[in-house]
Amino acid sequence: MSGGAKLIDGKAIAAEIRTEIKHDVESMKRIVPGLATVLVGERTDSSTYVRMKIKACKECSMNSIHRSLPDTASEEEVLQAVEELNRDESVHGILVQLPLPSHINEERILSSVSIEKDVDGFHVVNIGKLAMKGRTPLFVPCTPRGCVELLKRSGVQIAGKEVVVIGRSNIVGLPVSMLLIHENATVTIAHSRTADLPGVVRRADIVIAAVGRSEMVKGDWVKPGCIIIDVGINSKPDSSKKSGYRLVGDVDFEECRKIASMITPVPGGVGPMTIAMLLRNCVDAAMRKEREVNE
Amino acid sequence: MSGGAKLIDGKAIAAEIRTEIKHDVESMKRIVPGLATVLVGERTDSSTYVRMKIKACKECSMNSIHRSLPDTASEEEVLQAVEELNRDESVHGILVQLPLPSHINEERILSSVSIEKDVDGFHVVNIGKLAMKGRTPLFVPCTPRGCVELLKRSGVQIAGKEVVVIGRSNIVGLPVSMLLIHENATVTIAHSRTADLPGVVRRADIVIAAVGRSEMVKGDWVKPGCIIIDVGINSKPDSSKKSGYRLVGDVDFEECRKIASMITPVPGGVGPMTIAMLLRNCVDAAMRKEREVNE
Ligand SMILES: NC(=O)C1=CN([C@@H]2O[C@H](COP(=O)(O)OP(=O)(O)OC[C@H]3O[C@@H](n4cnc5c(N)ncnc54)[C@H](OP(=O)(O)O)[C@@H]3O)[C@@H](O)[C@H]2O)C=CC1
Ligand SMILES: NC(=O)C1=CN([C@@H]2O[C@H](COP(=O)(O)OP(=O)(O)OC[C@H]3O[C@@H](n4cnc5c(N)ncnc54)[C@H](OP(=O)(O)O)[C@@H]3O)[C@@H](O)[C@H]2O)C=CC1
Repeated sequence: MSGGAKLIDGKAIAAEIRTEIKHDVESMKRIVPGLATVLVGERTDSSTYVRMKIKACKECSMNSIHRSLPDTASEEEVLQAVEELNRDESVHGILVQLPLPSHINEERILSSVSIEKDVDGFHVVNIGKLAMKGRTPLFVPCTPRGCVELLKRSGVQIAGKEVVVIGRSNIVGLPVSMLLIHENATVTIAHSRTADLPGVVRRADIVIAAVGRSEMVKGDWVKPGCIIIDVGINSKPDSSKKSGYRLVGDVDFEECRKIASMITPVPGGVGPMTIAMLLRNCVDAAMRKEREVNE
Repeated sequence: MSGGAKLIDGKAIAAEIRTEIKHDVESMKRIVPGLATVLVGERTDSSTYVRMKIKACKECSMNSIHRSLPDTASEEEVLQAVEELNRDESVHGILVQLPLPSHINEERILSSVSIEKDVDGFHVVNIGKLAMKGRTPLFVPCTPRGCVELLKRSGVQIAGKEVVVIGRSNIVGLPVSMLLIHENATVTIAHSRTADLPGVVRRADIVIAAVGRSEMVKGDWVKPGCIIIDVGINSKPDSSKKSGYRLVGDVDFEECRKIASMITPVPGGVGPMTIAMLLRNCVDAAMRKEREVNE
């Protein structure tokens, strides 16, 4: 498409990363990296995500361990499952699939995951180290790490660029902002209380949209030639689909691709990267363990 | 001065806060809040800062405990001094005056301070909680907290405003950015790698300068009517002074006061607030202890 933005192909880049991971896994001598997934209840979307993670483990020659609990499980039962995985030496990363049923305290469950196995990177000590200059977190949260990898592997220079992050959540907006500051970008963090969001977004050389609102970022919100990473995953009614809906991002893709120089599609952009980074974090943990054993 | 900015009088606001602190201290029944200061070596500036902190404790009816070590002290000796203060029940806050002599690992010393007594708020768990939405740190770092208090007590509405923070250090720029995001400002974090700093600063309704460069922010960098918090403390040669120098901020005060609507002077702006917030943090810790004792 002449004049249109180059697509940042998250699917291809994630596949490249999985190949690297598989290579690392196969070069390990004593340990097979193992990822544990914990699923409470039977939400269709959560079950799908967990299945995708297990499948990706297999592709990368990793072990996967799965614990399924009924949605009537008590907080204590979920805690106990996590504790067992904390003790299990064949497990190097533990992923508790969110959201948990409402009778369970998410913060309590998440903070029960051993920090050495917190491959999601949401432990408060990990976030503290991520925020501070000169400290290295054990794990960088997967989706934020995926956004930065997409930029780097697409040859985008981040240092000195104006980045606008829309969203300030603990799992995407905030940690991706921290990462980009460390990459020497000038970062603006916008959110629902931002006064003139289109005006703010228009300043950006790089836009990271992590809002959760279908196609909110319009073509006339973005600067010609900018680079757009669309984190959003929203379902939009679409009668032409058998399911009755299709997935769209937080960015109006058709409008923005005409203005931007690079853009991620949804699906096929950030989504596959999140899983790849989860495996990367898990293998990094296993490699650390192997080095410790060798010492 | 007609058309000039209103001065934000940090000295007066800090005095007001010390009065509140003294009131809180005198209303406590079982505990007298105690601040411990640790000074290694004899740097004149550090000695002055410590003396000011001890004096402020006295003014607020608080106890102060001081440990002085020679600059030949070993890391183990400093650690031991901190450990003793960690155990000392009359001590509710521990302040290790920085910088430490170069043969001592600052990170190791700072992280040896018990998190319940980390009134500086630099512990990684405190920073992690400060960064995350929905978590409450035990202590908010003093200078950042002082900046926000100055704005609030001057009647500035922060929510929805464009804030530019110049500087991303662990002790000022980064934590003040976090606080202002939680206050619902749209925050841009600028630093030495920012491409067009004057252009970025010119967007701000509120400028926080924490750079460490004398009078760097010029009058034509700032938007008419903006509000300026100048964190910088720099000494500038001045032959008219007996000492041969005077203190200036990171902002060109004479130029910027003509353009801004409110501005902090240096000295007498953020400086006095830092000490007031240190005492506030220490008394908060003592009050938490008293509540625990009562429970
Ligand atoms: N690709 C992937 O692998 C992943 C995708 N996602 C997707 O990313 C999106 C964001 O997820 P998450 O961060 O968890 O969502 P949250 O709901 O936790 O956070 C959304 C953020 O967007 C802000 N926001 C909401 N409405 C507006 C608005 N009208 N204007 C400006 N800002 C607004 C909110 O502001 P405020 O703080 O003021 O409320 C909040 O900070 C979702 O679509 C989610 O599905 C998430 C994780 C992984
Ligand atoms: N009032 C008070 O109580 C206190 C005052 N201060 C004062 O505040 C100031 C900042 O302190 P601190 O944060 O510890 O300092 P640091 O030196 O740790 O950090 C300075 C920050 O300013 C940035 N910077 C340096 N030069 C430039 C430039 N030319 N353009 C844009 N950004 C630049 C640096 O960027 P980069 O990260 O890229 O290097 C860095 O992020 C100092 O003057 C200090 O004396 C500090 C603490 C308390």
